[in-house]
Amino acid sequence: MSKQEKTIDNKEWYLARYSPDGIPSSDHLKLRSSVLSLADLPHGHYALETLFVSLDPYLRSRLTGSDDGLYSPQFQLDQVITAFGIGRVVASNDGKFNEGDIVIHPFLPVAEYNVFPSSDFVARKLEADPAIPLPDVLGCLGVPGFAAWIAIEILACPKEGSNVFISAAAGGVGMYAGQLAKLRGCRVVGSTGSDDKVDLLKREFGYDDAFNYKKETDYDTTLSKYFPDGIDVYLDNVGGRMLEAVLRHVNRYARIPLCGMISQYNQVWTEREGVRNLLNAVGKEVRMEGFLLGSYLDRFGEFTTQMGNYLKEGKIKSKNKMYVGIEGFLEGLQSLFCSSNTGKVVLQVKEQ
Amino acid sequence: MSKQEKTIDNKEWYLARYSPDGIPSSDHLKLRSSVLSLADLPHGHYALETLFVSLDPYLRSRLTGSDDGLYSPQFQLDQVITAFGIGRVVASNDGKFNEGDIVIHPFLPVAEYNVFPSSDFVARKLEADPAIPLPDVLGCLGVPGFAAWIAIEILACPKEGSNVFISAAAGGVGMYAGQLAKLRGCRVVGSTGSDDKVDLLKREFGYDDAFNYKKETDYDTTLSKYFPDGIDVYLDNVGGRMLEAVLRHVNRYARIPLCGMISQYNQVWTEREGVRNLLNAVGKEVRMEGFLLGSYLDRFGEFTTQMGNYLKEGKIKSKNKMYVGIEGFLEGLQSLFCSSNTGKVVLQVKEQ
Repeated sequence: MSKQEKTIDNKEWYLARYSPDGIPSSDHLKLRSSVLSLADLPHGHYALETLFVSLDPYLRSRLTGSDDGLYSPQFQLDQVITAFGIGRVVASNDGKFNEGDIVIHPFLPVAEYNVFPSSDFVARKLEADPAIPLPDVLGCLGVPGFAAWIAIEILACPKEGSNVFISAAAGGVGMYAGQLAKLRGCRVVGSTGSDDKVDLLKREFGYDDAFNYKKETDYDTTLSKYFPDGIDVYLDNVGGRMLEAVLRHVNRYARIPLCGMISQYNQVWTEREGVRNLLNAVGKEVRMEGFLLGSYLDRFGEFTTQMGNYLKEGKIKSKNKMYVGIEGFLEGLQSLFCSSNTGKVVLQVKEQ
Repeated sequence: MSKQEKTIDNKEWYLARYSPDGIPSSDHLKLRSSVLSLADLPHGHYALETLFVSLDPYLRSRLTGSDDGLYSPQFQLDQVITAFGIGRVVASNDGKFNEGDIVIHPFLPVAEYNVFPSSDFVARKLEADPAIPLPDVLGCLGVPGFAAWIAIEILACPKEGSNVFISAAAGGVGMYAGQLAKLRGCRVVGSTGSDDKVDLLKREFGYDDAFNYKKETDYDTTLSKYFPDGIDVYLDNVGGRMLEAVLRHVNRYARIPLCGMISQYNQVWTEREGVRNLLNAVGKEVRMEGFLLGSYLDRFGEFTTQMGNYLKEGKIKSKNKMYVGIEGFLEGLQSLFCSSNTGKVVLQVKEQ
């Protein structure tokens, strides 16, 4: 890159208005341009060109404007949104990162370019494995893959033959969680929002069975049909009525890792569907446990080794839904809440 | 006991009709008389005179007529109700038990007398410790004491200085649980249904603070006041709105042993108040875990040793509310759901 090119028109997504309920729109998230000079980086800084951004449901909870104890703090008004992402170093005034390095950043501002201090300890150089495409680093080896691994391998630990139910099964977390449970010898059934995705789960991801929750809407009857022997593990990605129905079908000592509640994100909490039969959790001695990835970082190495091997051996399949160009951020984010996406949603900002 | 006396008029409580909702009444539970001959006990049998019966909230769930996965199976119509109890052997045709032995039975039919086969493995002879009154064997060393011990010592394991909240705090389980948490160096606050009981918790059971949930009805404000530093452990004995409020005040990694949900027992589940903010359990990484005593029987020895010592050393205080005479069973049971009782509710059937 020559000196002349080093002043850059940089597009970035910022928070214009909080979105307490509903699906966030262009009223709330807006794209703006700024001019970034890469010519005279301060000492100890580097510039990163964004390649891929991971779009995950937890982002929704940072846009409500009320800190009701969920996840990370709220994004600030007028500030650029951040997300898990991967970039390539395009200029550096520091020895830590060199031009061409691929860097992974858990709080990458959703912009085409960013300048960071090299001392920023959360960014790390990715020793790219040519057998693993970068979007899979954000998916299978990133936020949803790690969430799936914590849920199945640490919290649920299902035995061979256990009956495992996964909601939002064709989404980022569900896709990997079901495959991990299959690798443990479980019987796995998933719920998802379209017949195509039902097919995909069975054909592509090795689910024993799957159903379309928009068609089989009497969840109690549906779960009786798909779980004649009850449910031993439920990975809850949706909350609400489905969780309630599951609590009518749990076996003794069932484990329910609470990964997120996508049906609940877009409503203020007092409007949400309450779970009325928690008493069943007493009678069946159920353990329900919420978790965030940050609490399990000591297991991240073990996770990447295991998942990386599974991926390379073809034991875990990955599917990404790609939105292309920085402009695609909002549509990609919205797709998470419309049941329109399949697999891990990734924004590809630049050609690799 | 002479031969002549060995035909006995025996009163017993039986289930006349299931009670799906509301507080069970004399429409559902009725007293009847039968004649029992103790003159010619079959070989390998013994007759037990009931001394004390433990009245616990779980009994409610066995009277609804619908097996919705809760606790033990339903009682059968026309059959005698069973409960944890203590009796004295009044006749024996077997070497295992002798006249005068004190026997503890987890499923003792609520009758003045019963005849059992000695081979019945659930009954065991109580090696009575003169320092521990028999009602305390049913309380502190029985169902509620063991429940409190499992919740605090196994599931919650609060650290010194943890903020512990206990609902139904003046009831059987709450009374012991709060004292156990105090012995671990926690700050303990309880909720209960009258000002007298608030006083009792603070004066008698060493709670740091307590409130009357019938007066301080805005639970969110109330918990802000009593838990300025949030809640680390909540022993849930009530469910419903209080659980929901707690989920707004939990600290990260809070533990919520689900012991029972007394506010919910007398309603069919679809009429119950749902918990709408379970999403907070994700963001705060809360573990909620239901438990039944039967799953921890391997720890019963450890429990009786520890609690027995605490009781004898005066470190745990016990309070029993006694109903006297077999006729008092229904009133005692009803008192569990009227917030009218304090401490462990025990039916004394006979003078000791």
